[in-house]
Amino acid sequence: MADVEFDFERVRRIGLAEAVLGAGKNAGQLIEIVETARSRDVPVLLTRLSLEAGEALSGRFGAAVDYDPLSRTAFVGAVEGPSGAPRVAIVTAGTSDLPVAVEAERTLAFNGLAVERFVDCGVAGLWRILRHEEALRGFPVVIACAGMEGALFSVLGGLIGGLLIAVPTSTGYGLAEEGRTALHAALVSCAPGVVVVNVDNGFGAACAAVRALNLATPRR
Amino acid sequence: MADVEFDFERVRRIGLAEAVLGAGKNAGQLIEIVETARSRDVPVLLTRLSLEAGEALSGRFGAAVDYDPLSRTAFVGAVEGPSGAPRVAIVTAGTSDLPVAVEAERTLAFNGLAVERFVDCGVAGLWRILRHEEALRGFPVVIACAGMEGALFSVLGGLIGGLLIAVPTSTGYGLAEEGRTALHAALVSCAPGVVVVNVDNGFGAACAAVRALNLATPRR
Amino acid sequence: MADVEFDFERVRRIGLAEAVLGAGKNAGQLIEIVETARSRDVPVLLTRLSLEAGEALSGRFGAAVDYDPLSRTAFVGAVEGPSGAPRVAIVTAGTSDLPVAVEAERTLAFNGLAVERFVDCGVAGLWRILRHEEALRGFPVVIACAGMEGALFSVLGGLIGGLLIAVPTSTGYGLAEEGRTALHAALVSCAPGVVVVNVDNGFGAACAAVRALNLATPRR
Amino acid sequence: MADVEFDFERVRRIGLAEAVLGAGKNAGQLIEIVETARSRDVPVLLTRLSLEAGEALSGRFGAAVDYDPLSRTAFVGAVEGPSGAPRVAIVTAGTSDLPVAVEAERTLAFNGLAVERFVDCGVAGLWRILRHEEALRGFPVVIACAGMEGALFSVLGGLIGGLLIAVPTSTGYGLAEEGRTALHAALVSCAPGVVVVNVDNGFGAACAAVRALNLATPRR
Amino acid sequence: MADVEFDFERVRRIGLAEAVLGAGKNAGQLIEIVETARSRDVPVLLTRLSLEAGEALSGRFGAAVDYDPLSRTAFVGAVEGPSGAPRVAIVTAGTSDLPVAVEAERTLAFNGLAVERFVDCGVAGLWRILRHEEALRGFPVVIACAGMEGALFSVLGGLIGGLLIAVPTSTGYGLAEEGRTALHAALVSCAPGVVVVNVDNGFGAACAAVRALNLATPRR
Amino acid sequence: MADVEFDFERVRRIGLAEAVLGAGKNAGQLIEIVETARSRDVPVLLTRLSLEAGEALSGRFGAAVDYDPLSRTAFVGAVEGPSGAPRVAIVTAGTSDLPVAVEAERTLAFNGLAVERFVDCGVAGLWRILRHEEALRGFPVVIACAGMEGALFSVLGGLIGGLLIAVPTSTGYGLAEEGRTALHAALVSCAPGVVVVNVDNGFGAACAAVRALNLATPRR
Amino acid sequence: MADVEFDFERVRRIGLAEAVLGAGKNAGQLIEIVETARSRDVPVLLTRLSLEAGEALSGRFGAAVDYDPLSRTAFVGAVEGPSGAPRVAIVTAGTSDLPVAVEAERTLAFNGLAVERFVDCGVAGLWRILRHEEALRGFPVVIACAGMEGALFSVLGGLIGGLLIAVPTSTGYGLAEEGRTALHAALVSCAPGVVVVNVDNGFGAACAAVRALNLATPRR
Amino acid sequence: MADVEFDFERVRRIGLAEAVLGAGKNAGQLIEIVETARSRDVPVLLTRLSLEAGEALSGRFGAAVDYDPLSRTAFVGAVEGPSGAPRVAIVTAGTSDLPVAVEAERTLAFNGLAVERFVDCGVAGLWRILRHEEALRGFPVVIACAGMEGALFSVLGGLIGGLLIAVPTSTGYGLAEEGRTALHAALVSCAPGVVVVNVDNGFGAACAAVRALNLATPRR
Repeated sequence: MADVEFDFERVRRIGLAEAVLGAGKNAGQLIEIVETARSRDVPVLLTRLSLEAGEALSGRFGAAVDYDPLSRTAFVGAVEGPSGAPRVAIVTAGTSDLPVAVEAERTLAFNGLAVERFVDCGVAGLWRILRHEEALRGFPVVIACAGMEGALFSVLGGLIGGLLIAVPTSTGYGLAEEGRTALHAALVSCAPGVVVVNVDNGFGAACAAVRALNLATPRR
Repeated sequence: MADVEFDFERVRRIGLAEAVLGAGKNAGQLIEIVETARSRDVPVLLTRLSLEAGEALSGRFGAAVDYDPLSRTAFVGAVEGPSGAPRVAIVTAGTSDLPVAVEAERTLAFNGLAVERFVDCGVAGLWRILRHEEALRGFPVVIACAGMEGALFSVLGGLIGGLLIAVPTSTGYGLAEEGRTALHAALVSCAPGVVVVNVDNGFGAACAAVRALNLATPRR
Repeated sequence: MADVEFDFERVRRIGLAEAVLGAGKNAGQLIEIVETARSRDVPVLLTRLSLEAGEALSGRFGAAVDYDPLSRTAFVGAVEGPSGAPRVAIVTAGTSDLPVAVEAERTLAFNGLAVERFVDCGVAGLWRILRHEEALRGFPVVIACAGMEGALFSVLGGLIGGLLIAVPTSTGYGLAEEGRTALHAALVSCAPGVVVVNVDNGFGAACAAVRALNLATPRR
Repeated sequence: MADVEFDFERVRRIGLAEAVLGAGKNAGQLIEIVETARSRDVPVLLTRLSLEAGEALSGRFGAAVDYDPLSRTAFVGAVEGPSGAPRVAIVTAGTSDLPVAVEAERTLAFNGLAVERFVDCGVAGLWRILRHEEALRGFPVVIACAGMEGALFSVLGGLIGGLLIAVPTSTGYGLAEEGRTALHAALVSCAPGVVVVNVDNGFGAACAAVRALNLATPRR
Repeated sequence: MADVEFDFERVRRIGLAEAVLGAGKNAGQLIEIVETARSRDVPVLLTRLSLEAGEALSGRFGAAVDYDPLSRTAFVGAVEGPSGAPRVAIVTAGTSDLPVAVEAERTLAFNGLAVERFVDCGVAGLWRILRHEEALRGFPVVIACAGMEGALFSVLGGLIGGLLIAVPTSTGYGLAEEGRTALHAALVSCAPGVVVVNVDNGFGAACAAVRALNLATPRR
Repeated sequence: MADVEFDFERVRRIGLAEAVLGAGKNAGQLIEIVETARSRDVPVLLTRLSLEAGEALSGRFGAAVDYDPLSRTAFVGAVEGPSGAPRVAIVTAGTSDLPVAVEAERTLAFNGLAVERFVDCGVAGLWRILRHEEALRGFPVVIACAGMEGALFSVLGGLIGGLLIAVPTSTGYGLAEEGRTALHAALVSCAPGVVVVNVDNGFGAACAAVRALNLATPRR
Repeated sequence: MADVEFDFERVRRIGLAEAVLGAGKNAGQLIEIVETARSRDVPVLLTRLSLEAGEALSGRFGAAVDYDPLSRTAFVGAVEGPSGAPRVAIVTAGTSDLPVAVEAERTLAFNGLAVERFVDCGVAGLWRILRHEEALRGFPVVIACAGMEGALFSVLGGLIGGLLIAVPTSTGYGLAEEGRTALHAALVSCAPGVVVVNVDNGFGAACAAVRALNLATPRR
Repeated sequence: MADVEFDFERVRRIGLAEAVLGAGKNAGQLIEIVETARSRDVPVLLTRLSLEAGEALSGRFGAAVDYDPLSRTAFVGAVEGPSGAPRVAIVTAGTSDLPVAVEAERTLAFNGLAVERFVDCGVAGLWRILRHEEALRGFPVVIACAGMEGALFSVLGGLIGGLLIAVPTSTGYGLAEEGRTALHAALVSCAPGVVVVNVDNGFGAACAAVRALNLATPRR
C-alpha cells in the first residue's frame, strides 16, 4: 500500500487542486498515486515527470492520462480545461524556454484559465518585445520565462502595470549557473514590483496567477 | 547640476510613482534629488536611507519631507496616503522583521492603499498564526515578512488562497546567510504559488501588491 | 589482500556497530569487505550502495546479505532486528523522502530499535501533521525527513518536547540546492533545539538516536 | 505598545522556557520586552545582546536582569539555576570558543541543568582531549564547541557513546568561512551520529540537550 | 626605503602608463610611492584611494597631486589630459554608478582620451536609453556601468555595433551580491560579444578601451 | 510550426549575423530552425550542438550544413569564410582548450575574419609563450583560451598592447570549479585592461573581436 | 598533426618530468601524444585517464604503456621506478581514498621514489592512526589522503614533525561538497604548517614531495 | 584563572614552538596568556593581533614583548632569532602583500631561520620576477605571497625546483573574493607540485618551511 496522503481539502481551502511533483518518484510510486487518484475520483496534475515515468504512465493508463512530453506534465481525471478570454499572457525570451512556458500554460489550463503566448521576445532584438507592448498592457497577469541574464524581466517590468511573475529558466551555460543568474536578476530588477518563483517553476508561476486572479471573487 | 533623470512617465505607464533607492547615494546627491522633485512638483518615495541621509534630509527640509527612521523611508511632495478598507495584510514572524514590514506599509500608503498588520506570527508557536487564519483568508493579497528559515511562508501558503508575497528578511545569523536561507525557502516552498522578492525588499512587495490590485480595473 | 581495517572495538567503545559507506567503493571492494566481515563473524551495515553494487552483493551472497534497494542498505551477519515498543518516530514530508526514512529505520533495526513511521506530513496541508501531534509527543526521539524548504522541522519543533533530529533530503529542484536549503532551514529554525545531520543522512540520524537512547543506561 | 507576542505555552508544550533573540532588536525594543516579561512574571532568556543593548538593560534594570557580557546573555525574572550533578559536559577546542560555550552553559542553567566544562582540548595536541576520555564517557550528553576545521567533533565522536552535539564556532579566518568549514566538517564527520546546530549557536545546543535529557521522564 | 618597483617600461611595452592600486596600502606607503614617482618624473595614476589616503596625499602634496574624491583617484606628475573628439561613450544606469563611471573617465583622461557621458539610462524606463541610441551608435567603444541586474548591458548590446565593455557595479543590496549578479548577467548576456571587467573596475574598462583604440595604429 | 523569430535586422543593426545557441534545443527544433533559415536564405551560425543534434543535422542536410564536431558548431547558408591577413590571434594554454579556440575561430570565419592560432602556450613553461611575444604584439586583437588558474591571461596582458579577450575554459578539476577559477583570475588580473567573456564562450570572444575591428570603419 | 608542445626542458629546469592531464582530452588526442612522446623517447606520465582512454591506450600500445586503472595513470617510455628505502609515507583515511593515494604513489615511482602505505587510519577509531605514530615520525614527508571532514590532517599534524601534505579527496556526499569540506579543513587546520593541494590531486602531492626531497641536494 | 592549556610538548613532538592566534581573543585574555607564558618561561609567538591588542600588550609589558604592527605579531620570551645563511626565499607580488610576507618572516625568525626577501615581482611586468630567477633557484624553499589572480604561483612553479609554498593574500577587490581567487588559482596551478596554505597565512607557510627543512636531520 502506498505511503500517499492526498490533501483533498486543498482546492476548497486555497483554490488550487492537488498536484504531485514527479521528480524523485519512480514509475511504480507514480502509478500507485494515479491509481489512488482515479479510485477516489480526484483530478491530479503531475509535474516534472521523467521520460521513463511519462512513458510508463502512458503505457499503463493510455488516454486516461493526458501526458505532454514537452512540459513533462500529465493530467489525471476529468479536467475541464481553459475557458473564457485569456487573462494571462506568457512571454518567452527564446525557444529553449518553451518547456517551462508550457508547464505554466498546462497548469493554468488544469485550473480552467486560458492563456495567450508570446514567444522569442529576447531583448537583444528589442523590437521583438516592443511590438507586443500594447497587447501585453491589456493583461492583468504576465508570466515571463527567461534564462541567461533575465534582462527581459526588467524591460517588461518597465513597460506594463499588471502583475509580472518572473520564471527564471535554466537556459544558458557557465555563469548562467543553471538559472541562478536569471533568478538573481529578477530579484534585483530595477523595475519595481517584479515577483519571482523557483528556477524552471512554470507550475508555481501559474499557481500564483490563479491566486492573483482569485482576487476578482469578493472575499471580504 | 545633478545627473538625475526622473522617469516622469512611470506612474502613467505602469501605475507606480517614482521611487529612489537611497542606498549608495550620499546626502548631497539625495538633497539635490529632493530639490529637483520639489521644484517639478513630483511626489517621490525615498527608500533605504542611511541614518545620516535621513537626518540630513530632515535637517534641510523639515516637515516637507515625511521621514520614518524605522523603515528608513521618506515621502517627498503631496502624498494622499491610504484610504478605504485594507486590502493588503502584512504578517511578520517576529519583532526583528518590523522595519521591512513598515517599509512595505509605507510604500502602500504612498500608493494610496491601506494595510492591516499581524505581528509575531512565527510558526514555532503555531497558535500565533492559526488564530488569524480566518481573518487572513479575507485578504486578496498577503505580504509575509520572515527571516531565519522562513517556514511561515509555507504554512501561510497552505492556509490562504490569496496572492502570497514572501519577503525574506535578514533576521538571524550564521547559516541564515543574511536572508538567503529564508529566500531559498520561499522559492522552494511546498505550498504552491508563493512568489518572492529580494531580501528585505518591503518596497518591492508593496509594488507587486499594487500591480496585483490594479487587476480590479478592467483593462481588456 | 584488501586494504580494510575494521574498527572491531567500536561497538564496545561507543555502542554503535561497524558500518561501511558503500559510495565510492566498487563491487569488488565491497565483496572483499563482506567476505572479511563474514570470516570474522562481525555484523556490518552497508549504506549508500549503488544499484550495481547491491545486485553484485545479492548475486554473490544471496540471502546471507539482507539487501534493501529502496534504502540502498544491506545487513551482513546475524542481525537481531528491532524489539520492544517503538521509541523512535520517523516523520516524512512526502513520498520522495521515503528512501532516506527507510535508511534511518533500517539502521535503527540493525541496532535493535523499533520505529513508528508517519508519512506525508508536509506542512502545506497542516492537518496532516497536526492529527499526529498527540502521538508524536509520546516519543523521546523524533527523526524528521524533509526536503525543499524544510518547514516541517520548525513546525514539529514547536509541537513536541523530545529530541528532534532533522534530516534534510535532496528532494526538490533549482534553489532546493540538492538539500542545502532544507539543511540551512533546519540550522536556523525558529524552534529551539533542533539538531541536524548531513543531507540524506538517515544513517546518521539513526546513530544519533541510538546515542540519545543510550542515556537510559546509567553511566555515571 | 510593543509588537510582542510571548509564547507563554511553550514551556508546558515543549519543556523549554521563552527565549528572545537580541540580535536585530534595538535597546528600546528589548527594554519593552523585558518590561512585558516582568509585568507578567514570565522568566525570559535573552541571547546575542549587543554590547550597547546589554549595557542599556543593566543601566535600566540593574541586578533584576542577570547580564553576562562574555556570552552576551541575560536572565530576566526568577531563575532557579542549575542543580544536581552535571549531566552535560561542554568541551571547547580553544579559548576563542568560550563565549559560545558559556552561552550554552547559561542556557542550561536557565533550564535548571548543571554542566562540567573541559577547555582547550584542540586535537593538535591530542593528549589534551585524551586525558579527559574517561570522564567524558560518563556524560549522557556532550556539547563540543570548535571552530576552524572542527576536527574535535570527529575525534570525540569516536571516543564517546553519549549524544554528541557539535557547535561550530566562527573562530578562524580565511577559509574558516565564519564557521562554515567547522559546520560542514561536523555534518560530514566520519564518526557516526554527530548532530549539529547553527554556527555559534550555544543556545540551540543547550536546548537540544534539554530535549534529550527529557527522555528520562517516561512519556509513553 | 620603500619596497616599490615601478614597471617603467610598461607604457612602451603595452601602451598603458603605470597605475597603482591604492586599496590595501596605508597613507605612509602611498606617500612614499608618490615621492618615488615624482623624483623619477614618472606620471602615475592612483586608484581606489581611501578617504584618509586621499586627504593625506592632498595635505602632503597639494595641487601637485590631482585628487578626485568621487572617483577616489589621483594623478601624479604631468598629465596632458584628454584631447580630440570623444571616441569613448560612458553610459550609466543610475546615479549610484557615477563613482565608477568617473574612475573610467579619469583613467581615459590620464591616457589622453576624451569621453562623452550618458547618465541615468536604466532600462526600467526604456525611453531613457533609446533616446541616445543614434548617438551611441557613433562611438567605436561604449563603456556601460550598471549594478543590480545589469539589464542595461543586454539592451545596449542589441542596439550598437561598437565594442561594448560592461562594468558591473556594486549598486543594490541582498541578492545583488555586491555586484556579482550584474557581473554574471553581463557574462551570460543574450546580446553577442559583450565583454566584462571586475565589479566596480572603471579603471580596467578604460584600459581595455585604450587597448582597443590602439588598433588604429597599424602594427603589422 | 516552430516558435522561432529570427532577428533579421541584427547584422544591419550591430554588424553580427544571426546565431543560434544549440544547447537546450532538441534535434527537431534545430532542424526546424535550419529549414526556416534556408527557406529565407539567412546565413545562421549554430553553436554548442550536442553530438546527437550535430549528427541529426548532418544526416538531414548533408553538406548544406557545414558541421564541425570539435567546436560543436555548424554553418547554415552561404558563408564566405575568412579573407585577408589574420587580424586576430588565438592563443591556447593547452590541448584541452582547443574546442573553445576553434569555436572562436569558426565564429570569426563566419564573420569573414582570418585568424592565426598559437597553441600550448601555458605559463608553466614560460618559453612557450615568450617565443611568440613578438608575433603576438603585431595583432590588434588577441583571444586567449585557458582553464585551470588562467595565469596565461595576466602574463599575456603584460606583454602585449592590443585588446586582450580572455576566454576561461572549463579545463581542470576540483577547485578549477568548471572554469570559474580561470574566469575570476581574468577578472582580477594584475595586468590592466583584460576583458572577459563567459566560460567556454569562444563564440562571444569572437563577436567581441568583430565589434572591436569594426572600429576601423569610421562612424563618427 | 597534433597541437602538442612538450616542455622538454622541464625535468632539467625544475626536476620533474613531463606529465599530461588526461581529463578533457579524447582518445585520439592521447594516442597522438603518446606517439609523439615515444618517437622522441621522452618518458611521460599520463593522469586522470577516463576508462575509455585507458583502454584505448592499452589496446593500441599494449605493454609499452604501463596503465593502472585504479589510479587512472599510465607510464609511457622507460621508467626506472622507485629505488632505495621509502622516504615518503602515504596515509589514507579509508578505502575510498585509495585511487588518489595510488596516483600519488605512481607519480613518486615515476620520479624514482619509494613509498610506504598506511591505510584505513580514519580518526573515528583513533587507535588506527596512533599505532603508526612512531613509524610515521620517521618519514621526512607524509602525504595524507582523506575526504569527508578531513580531521585526519589535523590529528597527523599534531603528531609528526615532517612535511605534511594534505590531499583532500572527494569521498563523502552532501555537505562533503565533492571534497571542498576536507580541503577547507586542511587549510584551516589547528595544526601548524599543514600544506594542501587540489581535491583528489595525488599527482600534485607527489610532485611537492619530490620538490621537498630535492632539498637534500645542496644547491646554494 | 585563565582557561589556557599550553601544549608544552609541541616543540619536542613536532619541532614547532607554541603559537597563539590573537584573533578572537580580547586584550584581557591575551595579557593573561602572556603572563602565563612568562611565568613558565615558555617562548610564545602571538599572531593576528588587533591594533588594540598589540598596543595593550606593548603598554603592559614594554620591550619584554617584541611587537611588530605591520605583521601584527609579537614574540614573548627569549627568542634567539635567525642565524646562518638564508634557506628560505620570500617573494611578493606587490606592496600590499608585505604584511603577510613579514608574518612569515617573523615566524621563521622565531624558529631560528633566516630569510631573503624579493618584493614587487608581479607577473604583469615579467622582467620583475625573471631577473631573480637564478637567485631563486638556489633556495630549497620559496614562499610566494600574492593576491588578485595569483598568477605568480604558476610562473614561479615553472621556474624553480624547490618546494614552493603559495600564500594567497586578500589583496584585490570584487571577484578577488578576499583571497579565494588567488587560493583557487594556486590549487589548480598548471605548474606541478605547488602547495598552498590558508589566505593570508604567512604563519602557516613559515611552519611548513620549518617542517620541510627539518628534513636535513636524519630521522630514519
